[in-house]
Amino acid sequence: MSLLENLKWRYATKKMDGSLVDESKVQQILEATRYSASSFGLQPYHILVVKDPAIREKLSPASYNQPQILGCSHFLVFCIWDDIKEEHIDTFIADIAAKRNLPLEALKDYKAYITGSVSSRSVEEKNIWSAKQAYIALGTALAAAAEAKVDSTPMEGFNPAQYDEILGLKEKGLKSVVILALGHRDAPNDYMVNLPKVRRDSDLLFTTL
Amino acid sequence: MSLLENLKWRYATKKMDGSLVDESKVQQILEATRYSASSFGLQPYHILVVKDPAIREKLSPASYNQPQILGCSHFLVFCIWDDIKEEHIDTFIADIAAKRNLPLEALKDYKAYITGSVSSRSVEEKNIWSAKQAYIALGTALAAAAEAKVDSTPMEGFNPAQYDEILGLKEKGLKSVVILALGHRDAPNDYMVNLPKVRRDSDLLFTTL
Repeated sequence: MSLLENLKWRYATKKMDGSLVDESKVQQILEATRYSASSFGLQPYHILVVKDPAIREKLSPASYNQPQILGCSHFLVFCIWDDIKEEHIDTFIADIAAKRNLPLEALKDYKAYITGSVSSRSVEEKNIWSAKQAYIALGTALAAAAEAKVDSTPMEGFNPAQYDEILGLKEKGLKSVVILALGHRDAPNDYMVNLPKVRRDSDLLFTTL
Repeated sequence: MSLLENLKWRYATKKMDGSLVDESKVQQILEATRYSASSFGLQPYHILVVKDPAIREKLSPASYNQPQILGCSHFLVFCIWDDIKEEHIDTFIADIAAKRNLPLEALKDYKAYITGSVSSRSVEEKNIWSAKQAYIALGTALAAAAEAKVDSTPMEGFNPAQYDEILGLKEKGLKSVVILALGHRDAPNDYMVNLPKVRRDSDLLFTTL
């Protein structure tokens, strides 16, 4: 199936049946997500894959008890770095050097370019920018899940501060920004399953100049 | 090819060869982008597809004269609504009613739910939220371009205020947030074409709990 057909197949699943998704499919989704584009290639985020039911029990009330938190198979919490520090950029540059077999010296200008761009922003601006990069990854994850015929529900309806507390994210230098349930639809009990998809008509979404 | 293979094939093309991408492929990319997920399904954005070389000549200096602006085939400007107004929500609810063959009355609660959520935010918060939705669409567009074997360069390096002025976006109630060049790589002249892709290793990007 094409990406378009996969996107038409998927929908924001309201009720999942609690069954487990094959680990191989989850790995396929994560691997595609890992290959998402990001500005500079910096990937200023980290993704938690929560399988533990006890942790999900704690997260559930911090997400309006939406049933997908417990009913999904794998629960992803997209987190951003709570700041972008020099060590993040150093680690990234070292990774480029290793993977492209370059001396660090050859990446000096690129490092200065990234540092200059990032350091001109306030922490809040960095957070917003990092969250936008994470949303590109979210878009990829949704496409990858649909390709694997795994149902998915992206959600913003949760309390990030409570999530950060429950998951100990502050100590890890992270902040939660968006969550994604992966699982299997409970079709007989999901009112959304047969509803036609609503997307703005092309002539209202696009303007050609 | 799978989504993962497509994502490995793509890269942020630094130099494009000026040739035109088949309109059928562009339509395929736009149609997949249109099917992107967004919070509530509201799609609080609009996408300009700039083919006109004269307009791109004007945009080029507002984007650091990056060569893809002129060297690409189709140049996409992702814009957000500069505010989310009641009429936007009304139009969206009417679209759902039409596409799902429902009376407006049946969507009263959903409308109140969206309105309540949106109206609690400042214009700036709405802008940030809308931009994040647009970045999901950007992620989809990148995947769709790669599937069609169309090269793509997402870019944040431009002056949004100048773009808004040149494109008359204020009058349209829009603000530019991110740009995307679609075209064909100029392989002999693009230093990026043969460089290994750098993505953070899985064990550093993901934590399983």
